[in-house]
Amino acid sequence: MRIEKNNQKADNRAIGVFDSGLGGLTAVKELMHTLPKENIVYFGDTGRVPYGTRSNETIIKYVHQDIRFLLNFNIKLIVVACGTASSVALEKVRTQFEVPIVGVVKPAVEKAISLTHSKRIGIIGTPSTINSKSYVRSIAQMAPDVKTFDKACPLFVPLVENGYLDNQVARLVAQEYLEPLKKERVDTIIMGCTHYPLLKETICKVMGEGVALVDPGAETAKYVKTFLDEKKTFAHEASKQQYRYFVSDSIAHFEELGSLFLQKKMQNCVEKIDIEQY
Amino acid sequence: MRIEKNNQKADNRAIGVFDSGLGGLTAVKELMHTLPKENIVYFGDTGRVPYGTRSNETIIKYVHQDIRFLLNFNIKLIVVACGTASSVALEKVRTQFEVPIVGVVKPAVEKAISLTHSKRIGIIGTPSTINSKSYVRSIAQMAPDVKTFDKACPLFVPLVENGYLDNQVARLVAQEYLEPLKKERVDTIIMGCTHYPLLKETICKVMGEGVALVDPGAETAKYVKTFLDEKKTFAHEASKQQYRYFVSDSIAHFEELGSLFLQKKMQNCVEKIDIEQY
Repeated sequence: MRIEKNNQKADNRAIGVFDSGLGGLTAVKELMHTLPKENIVYFGDTGRVPYGTRSNETIIKYVHQDIRFLLNFNIKLIVVACGTASSVALEKVRTQFEVPIVGVVKPAVEKAISLTHSKRIGIIGTPSTINSKSYVRSIAQMAPDVKTFDKACPLFVPLVENGYLDNQVARLVAQEYLEPLKKERVDTIIMGCTHYPLLKETICKVMGEGVALVDPGAETAKYVKTFLDEKKTFAHEASKQQYRYFVSDSIAHFEELGSLFLQKKMQNCVEKIDIEQY
Repeated sequence: MRIEKNNQKADNRAIGVFDSGLGGLTAVKELMHTLPKENIVYFGDTGRVPYGTRSNETIIKYVHQDIRFLLNFNIKLIVVACGTASSVALEKVRTQFEVPIVGVVKPAVEKAISLTHSKRIGIIGTPSTINSKSYVRSIAQMAPDVKTFDKACPLFVPLVENGYLDNQVARLVAQEYLEPLKKERVDTIIMGCTHYPLLKETICKVMGEGVALVDPGAETAKYVKTFLDEKKTFAHEASKQQYRYFVSDSIAHFEELGSLFLQKKMQNCVEKIDIEQY
């Protein structure tokens, strides 16, 4: 698979990306934009979504299965696009696989630290992500002088999935969740769940213009680019089937909502699999 | 297991109840109240909740597994407490098992028909329940002169699970969902999902006093009583472990929220199982 070309090694194996559902497509969109020659295999665990309200034990089991499924393809790197899976399971499963595995926490944290002036960073995410303290710990390690304030926003995912992106209900819920972070005068917020960037306008309105919002999916795509650059393992050509998508529930529903996340039409490119076999 | 006593047969085998999560406990509460001597085995599929947004194929597969799990106990009757499972899967799986299986649709429909004066009934439920048209078809069969109006309320479950029962957000969402039913001047509403009775106050405020609300869990408990009475298969004595609860995710979370649904403290009575083995 590795071909020498222009004195650079090439590695046309695919990047595997998984998420609890379709939110990880925001990261895929960024990867397509940042690395247009890479092949991508995506798995969305739509039959067991959401992960963010489940126990750690269950999340770790699901993440194992998700990775084992992706390893059936010719994979050079796995991206855990799900904030919950990255926070709760990544450190526990990483050592059990040979393939490099990249989560969303570190890239988002590095970006947030580079942006904050007040050294006060807010973190929002699912209950499991917030309870894991993954972002708080990572910031404490990388920038001990930065103060962190976190808040679980359990209604944000159902709001997004039902198209409540920028209406009165979304604003009321956002006000309730974000008020404590506003009071603490954070100047940067990590949107620690793939769904939250779709609520960006509402979060902006509630927090005010001066607050920077970090999208972990976008930061992870940039991180992957740096990673492949360092290892000199960029793909030199895309395969015929450059983008493959797999789900554990209805294809139709995924194609419909997926187009919203990917911001391009999805048609006849999704396959259904039984994740419980992995 | 069948013992003759006072010229009546007795059947101390348990009633199996399952739901996609903990909502089915509202039906269990009614069963405990209506049939205090019966033994109950409950399974809540908390590792794969919610069912209401999944495809029919996935729901049917999950329901098969739920029933197969319950049949490991000494069961005389299975109650499908989940509105989605009753609507989407019941007719398809019933013939594959010997045990009698009771869903929530028929008891709720009978009650609603007995209550309506205007012969205009509203039905609310999860997207899968509403798409299945189970309630609409059942009413058309039993009372062809009754008009039906249905509306999916996908945000109601997350609202309840996050304690938004009677606040501004709950009222705004309820207004949006219920406005079309109000316009159609329905005088009876079937709350076709186990979670919805917890939003009763809010639904009442939006619809106004003259509208009757039907709770399928409560009606199903009464239906089970009639069923056991007809077959003369009431239990004559409760076993030592009268109530057993099983879940497919965290016990702690279930005990905590379950107390809300059951309206009594749950402690050290829940066991976790791997539903994918069934």
